[in-house]
Amino acid sequence: MTHTLILLRHGQSEWNEKNLFTGWYDVTLTEQGRAEATRGGALLREAGLNPDVLHTSVLKRAIITANLALEEADRLWIPVKRSWRLNERHYGALQGKDKTQVRDEFGEEQFMVWRRSYDTPPPALSDDSEFSQAHDPRYADLGDAAPRTECLKDVLDRMLPYWEESIIPDLAAGKTVLVTAHGNSLRALVKHLDGISDEDIASLNIPTGIPLVYELDDEFRPTGPGKYLDPDAAAEAITAVANQGKH
Amino acid sequence: MTHTLILLRHGQSEWNEKNLFTGWYDVTLTEQGRAEATRGGALLREAGLNPDVLHTSVLKRAIITANLALEEADRLWIPVKRSWRLNERHYGALQGKDKTQVRDEFGEEQFMVWRRSYDTPPPALSDDSEFSQAHDPRYADLGDAAPRTECLKDVLDRMLPYWEESIIPDLAAGKTVLVTAHGNSLRALVKHLDGISDEDIASLNIPTGIPLVYELDDEFRPTGPGKYLDPDAAAEAITAVANQGKH
Repeated sequence: MTHTLILLRHGQSEWNEKNLFTGWYDVTLTEQGRAEATRGGALLREAGLNPDVLHTSVLKRAIITANLALEEADRLWIPVKRSWRLNERHYGALQGKDKTQVRDEFGEEQFMVWRRSYDTPPPALSDDSEFSQAHDPRYADLGDAAPRTECLKDVLDRMLPYWEESIIPDLAAGKTVLVTAHGNSLRALVKHLDGISDEDIASLNIPTGIPLVYELDDEFRPTGPGKYLDPDAAAEAITAVANQGKH
Repeated sequence: MTHTLILLRHGQSEWNEKNLFTGWYDVTLTEQGRAEATRGGALLREAGLNPDVLHTSVLKRAIITANLALEEADRLWIPVKRSWRLNERHYGALQGKDKTQVRDEFGEEQFMVWRRSYDTPPPALSDDSEFSQAHDPRYADLGDAAPRTECLKDVLDRMLPYWEESIIPDLAAGKTVLVTAHGNSLRALVKHLDGISDEDIASLNIPTGIPLVYELDDEFRPTGPGKYLDPDAAAEAITAVANQGKH
């Protein structure tokens, strides 16, 4: 018996569109992002994939993506679990900053280290910043454990306990699990699932709004590569992202 | 210390608009219904009421209402619990039927008994009906306990265990609880809270899309009457519903 895991990255957010580092800042989807989410739900429905349970981050761009996709797939009634452990990477002092300005100010090399290094986080975000979540009630229970910046390794370290303690039990119970989350929390999960090296993960991109489906064995390891429900659109989006840094 | 409970009836559904008995049939909201839900969220935000946890039925008209209200109130991230025990009353063989046709066919007296009698359910709905939920996967765990028809007393009997075992613990933990549900599951809850008699509950109507706020004491009994966040609109809607049967 195999287990079905579906990963879905949220559609375009307002800050994606504005080219700002977002991280834990809680921006909403653009109209394009909403359309991507609905399209993701249509792909699930057309593939006959019926999620039995939803796991999301606590950020509205992932939550709205899930709500729209499940409405389109006619599965709004399934149980929902949310966790900060599925949040986007905390971008530290870069949150709220324009990506091009950061590159111009700190140079291409530093920019790429912050964006893509596995274990080098950006400088911490001050709790006084308007872009800080230090006083956000949804993280009150975390206390000092709430991050002020993260590298991808940090994301993996805080995501993995949730994978093991909350998602795997649902898979083990025979449920088809949908995870709606973010570029970096999903990259962290895919790194774990596919055993991707710290170096190779830098070049892995997950497109928005296209469900990525894994079949897992009884040890919750993939039985083969994850499959995008619209492989052509996924390939096109991955190529576009890979070319973003080149200009 | 008091506890805050917020009740919200879903906005207009497609079958409200078409004047059909809906019950457990899973119809979506109209555009007007969606606007009502968003307005409900704005009323919460303007009142400074921040739900900490959401309880909904498993019917999409209540779920979408909650999603839109919480998006407007900027509380999408709160935990969500869903239960069939918050569903609308199962309308039995009336589900899918036009209300005016039922009245014409069976007479005003029988019509009012089915609509408003506390303990007389309509005839059971056949599992073969296109309007049946007998084969709906969301109720598979219920087995034979799934209703085929319900009177308001039946609704209260299946709602009350959820109130006691799921909602009260959240209130006891100091959380502000939002319940988005249906005309009859909310009437059943209000009957219980306010100690309304079997006779008097017949004339109680709860308007759609206007949050109804209760403060509860340590025994989870109201400290006073529930208050609508827009009392004028609520009074107007209640009068309109009361006049619906008169023509």
